[in-house]
Order: sequence, then structure tokens, then C-alpha cells
Amino acid sequence: MPSDIVVIREVGLRDGLQSIGRTVPTAHKLQWIQSAWRAGLREIEVGSFVPPRLLPQLADTAELVAYAKTLPGLSVSVLVPNLKGAERAIESGADLMLLPLSASRAHSLANLRKAPDEVIQEIGRIRAARDAAGSACLLEVGISTAFGCTIQGRVEPAQVLDLLRAALDTGVDRVGLADTVGYADPRAVDALFTQAYAIAGERLACGHFHDTRGLGVANVMAALRTGVRRFDASLAGIGGCPHAPGASGNVASEDLAYLFASMGMPTGIDIPQLLQLRTLVAEWLDGEALHGTLWRAGLPKTMQPAPADAAA
Amino acid sequence: MPSDIVVIREVGLRDGLQSIGRTVPTAHKLQWIQSAWRAGLREIEVGSFVPPRLLPQLADTAELVAYAKTLPGLSVSVLVPNLKGAERAIESGADLMLLPLSASRAHSLANLRKAPDEVIQEIGRIRAARDAAGSACLLEVGISTAFGCTIQGRVEPAQVLDLLRAALDTGVDRVGLADTVGYADPRAVDALFTQAYAIAGERLACGHFHDTRGLGVANVMAALRTGVRRFDASLAGIGGCPHAPGASGNVASEDLAYLFASMGMPTGIDIPQLLQLRTLVAEWLDGEALHGTLWRAGLPKTMQPAPADAAA
Repeated sequence: MPSDIVVIREVGLRDGLQSIGRTVPTAHKLQWIQSAWRAGLREIEVGSFVPPRLLPQLADTAELVAYAKTLPGLSVSVLVPNLKGAERAIESGADLMLLPLSASRAHSLANLRKAPDEVIQEIGRIRAARDAAGSACLLEVGISTAFGCTIQGRVEPAQVLDLLRAALDTGVDRVGLADTVGYADPRAVDALFTQAYAIAGERLACGHFHDTRGLGVANVMAALRTGVRRFDASLAGIGGCPHAPGASGNVASEDLAYLFASMGMPTGIDIPQLLQLRTLVAEWLDGEALHGTLWRAGLPKTMQPAPADAAA
Repeated sequence: MPSDIVVIREVGLRDGLQSIGRTVPTAHKLQWIQSAWRAGLREIEVGSFVPPRLLPQLADTAELVAYAKTLPGLSVSVLVPNLKGAERAIESGADLMLLPLSASRAHSLANLRKAPDEVIQEIGRIRAARDAAGSACLLEVGISTAFGCTIQGRVEPAQVLDLLRAALDTGVDRVGLADTVGYADPRAVDALFTQAYAIAGERLACGHFHDTRGLGVANVMAALRTGVRRFDASLAGIGGCPHAPGASGNVASEDLAYLFASMGMPTGIDIPQLLQLRTLVAEWLDGEALHGTLWRAGLPKTMQPAPADAAA
């Protein structure tokens, strides 16, 4: 039986902010990282090492890594699209590189301007560079559009599993499956994660779900049942891929923290503190589409403190 | 193995409209019922036989039943709080009476001004009146606040199961469990529905979930896994009990229809038609808090027609 301890990796600063046009000031991002850490989050994806002309919102990623690395016990992730980005990530001292690999050829070409097999080759070069640098930075391949693609439509599970094998063969440390555009459903999640686990074992280390069509939390539950114990999520459910039309909204970190807490599965997260941070982030992002549900009602009376119920 | 066929019972006209101050004109409600039936819904709760001075929004329930009964194959439900309401329901020709029974004593007193054991006695009188009238109207007891209560907090599962036994002993046809205030989580749902099924067998016929804290769809999935095949839901996720503070939002009918369709479980519902009806209802309820997620993005490309993706 897998452990009941669940890890929520906050990806709002990367997946969230990449989908929002405005640039959140670095000082606010630092406050976000610090508050998330104080609320008990121990894994945060702080940004991407992509060319600043493509995503100027994330141009301060190196500075964010440097600060985040000062917080005890925090694992600092960054997204890396290619070897050049990987070199910057190694230099920054990040603990983990998230390497996206689209199962959809159409999305891969739109997002990385490379076909999936070319991305696999680049991942091999990244692994070699990491090893040559003597870096301890973990490599995690996130297989995106694993449940379908807004550009090409259907994505065959066999294709996802082939790419999973190829990714593992490059020698990366971990793999994860991502429903980039909110096409997954609990049955599909159960089937694909079960098959992926048979191939990857404990190296299958993350589920990444968007809540585009209301099934995000149910899909997390389906993956949890197969044994997955790490999930990406973003505060206020922000998120979306610029090259995946209609890909709005990661599962909300605060809703996932509540899900696990209500089932008695420890995440180490202080939910009232996380909701306070959500309020702050919502102010910074005033006018943007935010998501998530818990923040309206607050914690139930059975999970005191329950400020919202008390005030209702 | 239970069948894959799932029934969604639309309760927006009752649970939804009772929580909204404005009165939707009867003509709109008739259009709602007709459009929902055209979209494939075959069970609709059209209103409540409560005193009109308490819920003037639902004062036209008898007229709605009369119209709904003209639609072929439609099972017409009404909520009934006491014997007097039951007499009106029998007279109206409704197919099913939903009899609420709060597991929380505090909620029971606030909602029905009776303690749970007094409600059980009233249910016995309702059953006798139904039989004496030679009516075929089904009796379903909905055990509300089964997972907790915003007034008293914790509700003991043992208390819920005792009430379930007592309700079955009155000779009603069906029972269901309701998370009236959005306190349930998938583990609690799994545990309580499994225990309830052991007591009620096939007479356990409905799961009723609110999405107050984001777990509504995941809770539906948990109940589905225990064998439940009927779920209450409301269009645009409207709903809430006037005597249960903070009890906002049923699971959205359109999101549940999408959940089951995406898993290949037939509901008979035409989702694009249901989304059209949602648009109409959202116009009628302009300014009210609406919920649900699918309507923003529309169906995925893999489930054509997908108007929203095509337009994105």
C-alpha cells in the first residue's frame, strides 16, 4: 500500500503566470514563494528558463530560484524547454527540471517547434549535460497532452506509453502524465496511470490535471487510487498553455489541499494560511480569470478554524 | 456488476430555485422542463409542496407537475415536507415524492421544525396516506446533512445509518444520502454509501452532492464506485438550503452529464442541448451566483460537436 502522505507541487508561478499577459512584479513573486513555503508547501515550480522575449512574465526565474533556495526544505523546480534552458537551470541551482514532452505531435510542434522524437533526443542531451556538470538537479519529464489535444484531438494511449518508455530510456529520474487541456476523465486516468505505473514503477512521480471541464479533482482522485502521491496544482487554479487553445485552469492548490486534508491524508499544508495567500494573489491578478471553489465557503465547521462559516 | 446506465435527476427547479430570492415566471419554468426533457433528461424534480408563504418561488408546483406529466417517459418528482404537502403531491399526480430527513437534529429543527424521530413518524403517516389513496407515487427519503451540518458541525455516521434503517422500516420505496452543505469527501462517501448499501440494498437509490468546496464531482465518482446509479444535480449548479448557511451549489447537471459521457456511461443526455438550456437559464438568473465548469470550454474536440473549442 502506498503511503498516505501526498505532495502538492505549486505551479502557479510557472503554469499559471505563463498564461496571464501581465507581469507580476518580482517582489510579489518572492512574497508568493515565501508565503507558500510558510503555509507548508515544500515543492514549488518558480518559473521557466525560456527566452524572455517569448515569456517576459517569467524573465526573473533565476532570481526566484536563488531566493527559493534559501528556504529550508524547499524543493525548487523550473520548466526547461531545451538544452540552453537546461544549462541555465543547472547554473541557477534549481533542484528539479521539468522537461515537457508532448504526446500530441501537433502540440509538440506548436509548443516546442520539435516533433516528439526530436524532444526525446534533446532530453538525452540535457541528461548528458546535467551529468557532465556534476549537477544533482533531478530531471522529470512531463508528458503533456497525454489525454488529448485541442489541436489534433485524440491522442492514443499507446503513443503516450511509447514516449514514456523512450523518456525513461534517456535516464531521467522521473516521469509524470499531464492532462494539459482538460480532456481526461476518471476512467481514462485510471487506465493510463495504471499502464504507466507498470512501465515506470516508482519513477512515475506526478499527475498534472487541468480543471477545464470540471473533472480536475475527480481525475486527481482517480490517479491517487492508482498510487500517485504527487500532484501539480496552482493557487486560484490559474494556468494554461499558450500553445494549447482552451487549456484553462489547473486544479486549484487550495482545493486539493482541502481534498487531501478532508480524507485525512497529510500534506503539511496550513489551509487557512494558503487561503490568505490566495486572497493576496487574487488582488495581484485582479481582473484575471481565477478558479477554485473552497475559498468562497472556507473550511467546514468540522475542520476548525472555519472563518467563512462563522461569518455566514 | 451494476449497469453502466446512470440517471441524472435535475433538481434545479426545486433545490436551485428555492435558494434564489427571485421568482422565475411559470412560463420560463415550463420551457426549462420541456427543454430538459428534449435534451434527454428523464427525471426532473419540478418543485416543492411547501406553503407558498415560505417559498413563493415554488408556488406554481402543481401547474408544473401537470405539464411535466404530459411529456412521455418523464418521471416527475416533488419535494414534500409533511403530510399536508404529501396530500397535495398525491393529488397532483407526481410520480415521486422526495421526503427530506435531516441526520442533523439542529438542521432538522431549523428546516422542518421537527426532530428527526418526529420526521420519521410523519413519513410513516405519509406512507399510510399514499397507500390509502391507492396512489402509485413513489416515496424516497433523502437523508440530508448526512456528511455534516453547518449548524451543529459533525454528524455521526452511526446516526445516519440508524435513521436510514428507521426510514426503510416505514416502508418507503427508496432512500438516498445527501451532502446538503458540501462537507463530504471521497473517503467519507465511500464509507457511508458502502455501509448504507449493506443496509438498504437496491433501495439505496440516489446520491445528492453539493459542490460547496470543490469536491462535488469527486464525491459523485466515489458514490458511483459503490454502485449508486442515480444522482441529483442542477443546471448551472444552482442550489442551497435556506436553513443551511453556506450550503451553496449542487453539482452542475451539465458537468455530471459530461463526466458520465466521457467515461462512456450512457445517460441519454444531449450535452450541447443541455448547454443551450444552461445559457437560457443563466439569462433568466442574470446576477445570481451560477456554478459549473464545462460551459466555459464546451465539449472537447474528441466529443464533437465542440463549438467552444472550434471558436477558441
